[in-house]
Amino acid sequence: MSTNILDMETLALDEEERALVIIDQTKLPNRAEYLHLKTQGEIWTAIRELQVRGAPAIGDAAAIGIYLAALEIDTDDYDEFARRFHATADYLNSSRPTAVNLSWALNRMEAVVKNAAGKSIPEIRSLLRNEALRIKQEDIDICKKIGEHALTLVKPGYGLLTHCNAGQLATAKYGTATAVMYLGHQKGYNFKIYADETRPLLQGARLTAYELSAAGMDVTLICDNMASTVMKNGWIDAVFVGCDRVAANGDVANKIGTSGVAILAKHYGIPFYVCAPSSTIDMNTPTGKDIHIEQRAPKEVTDMWYKERMAPKDVNVYNPAFDVTDHELITAIVTEEGVVSDLEHLTSNKI
Amino acid sequence: MSTNILDMETLALDEEERALVIIDQTKLPNRAEYLHLKTQGEIWTAIRELQVRGAPAIGDAAAIGIYLAALEIDTDDYDEFARRFHATADYLNSSRPTAVNLSWALNRMEAVVKNAAGKSIPEIRSLLRNEALRIKQEDIDICKKIGEHALTLVKPGYGLLTHCNAGQLATAKYGTATAVMYLGHQKGYNFKIYADETRPLLQGARLTAYELSAAGMDVTLICDNMASTVMKNGWIDAVFVGCDRVAANGDVANKIGTSGVAILAKHYGIPFYVCAPSSTIDMNTPTGKDIHIEQRAPKEVTDMWYKERMAPKDVNVYNPAFDVTDHELITAIVTEEGVVSDLEHLTSNKI
Repeated sequence: MSTNILDMETLALDEEERALVIIDQTKLPNRAEYLHLKTQGEIWTAIRELQVRGAPAIGDAAAIGIYLAALEIDTDDYDEFARRFHATADYLNSSRPTAVNLSWALNRMEAVVKNAAGKSIPEIRSLLRNEALRIKQEDIDICKKIGEHALTLVKPGYGLLTHCNAGQLATAKYGTATAVMYLGHQKGYNFKIYADETRPLLQGARLTAYELSAAGMDVTLICDNMASTVMKNGWIDAVFVGCDRVAANGDVANKIGTSGVAILAKHYGIPFYVCAPSSTIDMNTPTGKDIHIEQRAPKEVTDMWYKERMAPKDVNVYNPAFDVTDHELITAIVTEEGVVSDLEHLTSNKI
Repeated sequence: MSTNILDMETLALDEEERALVIIDQTKLPNRAEYLHLKTQGEIWTAIRELQVRGAPAIGDAAAIGIYLAALEIDTDDYDEFARRFHATADYLNSSRPTAVNLSWALNRMEAVVKNAAGKSIPEIRSLLRNEALRIKQEDIDICKKIGEHALTLVKPGYGLLTHCNAGQLATAKYGTATAVMYLGHQKGYNFKIYADETRPLLQGARLTAYELSAAGMDVTLICDNMASTVMKNGWIDAVFVGCDRVAANGDVANKIGTSGVAILAKHYGIPFYVCAPSSTIDMNTPTGKDIHIEQRAPKEVTDMWYKERMAPKDVNVYNPAFDVTDHELITAIVTEEGVVSDLEHLTSNKI
């Protein structure tokens, strides 16, 4: 593939500004299909069904989505508008429970409405449009800064492992865990990148391998259970992952399997870095134990993607979408503000 | 399912003694299809293509298979017979490289021929038949003894995790890692068993979950990358896995992912047991580094089982079928002779 993925818009307000346009991530890598989402129901479903996924991208989609939904609230009455806007925010916020960016972005949009009492509804809509586009642009700027900070942690020729997709597709551009890869690639760093396929939804195989290949990087796909072997082979110099929520004590919720990769990295003496916008840090959640972990349907494990069911009928399945990596296992968290390694005292760090 | 899997013959010489009958493990769990294998080519292919798999079962199949092949060597001349028998053994031994049981069983069959110089070909064939059936019966007896020794390591109600399939389907009966589960289940131990699905070939989902469900056990299927979470949840009291080769220093080659599970178990303070017949211990292999690891086709990761390819075209794939678990990570190896925990000095143990 010769497309430069960084030039692709994978999440945007369309030209007529009547739809959120996203690449349908459930169709990758075989088809690059774009969805035009207009109603709050369509946006809720797209987030729920992982057509758009990745903590920052979910925030961007929710912000643009609730702006579009606000265009449909046909009233001139501020209180009525605010009440219906709040109901829409509640509804969109129910689409997925683990990523803090979803509620964070919706809260920012709600704050616009709250601070605009007395303004006309068209004025408020205009402010909402600006805030949604600002959230997306900030995401791009933040990812780039995360990448610049992460570049200080690597050297040319490094072997890098990542899990799931904290890539361009999970953000508006650059990705979080992959920002270091994109920026390093532009500098000719020649990384050798290993992508865990990330069962059950295969975001690593379908999305990470896709976008890093599309950018011309040297990427090798492995099954999740091969991470120990590639580390033992001496092929991995650092692990970079994204995350969905950081608790106040530095514990991190990320895609299921992340905690296992962190334990392996510790065993083999490999640094383990978590990349996230500072908005992912949730000071209202004291520790990882307080993070609600989304449980998903058994069929994702037994049936999805397959030609036929791959497990006996009626077998019990445990399918948590995320796990918690204890802060002791994390070498540093990389945010747009810098590299934070004193994770036990996140509250005292200026991030 | 109400079938008692222990009553099923999954690997046997047929009644006319002209074919090796095996359940085709590539078709499970959706179809229980039996294959009748007669020629050395059919037997080689069945081992290569994993229609029969699991280290002890491969040994059983090779022994019965080479007996059947010997029926086709139509000569009365001992030297000619021995030469062609040796060529067949070499050929069957080339079907898979990692499990020592394959060459071990073929060596036992070859020893029969070597020790029978002067005997008639029909006599030698009869001795070969007896040796092949003895190898299979010994497998059954050994697995049962492994289970009895492993029972001393568990208590009723234990949560047990296993990886891949070291089950009845990998042996002639009981399995190695699963022997403790079958024998404990017969005693009403009410284990809660977690089966890693074991990518890429899904032996845990397709075979272990199938056979333990069929035996009426409480089994829960998880993706490989969920093992850390079920351990962290406090649900696992012990891990039992099989193995394909034990080096003289106690390092163990087993299904890819095993070393990762062992590292997780150590991190969480959970005992990690390897169950294997003593024939699996290869004193000619000094350490795990000396074990040849089979590399398999990329399509097993990117295409197999799926409705369509799940990774970008031309992506690099690393697909080792096994990994090596260092002896420091293993609490004990359970053989038919007992429980060996002094793994660094396997050579001085009478096993």
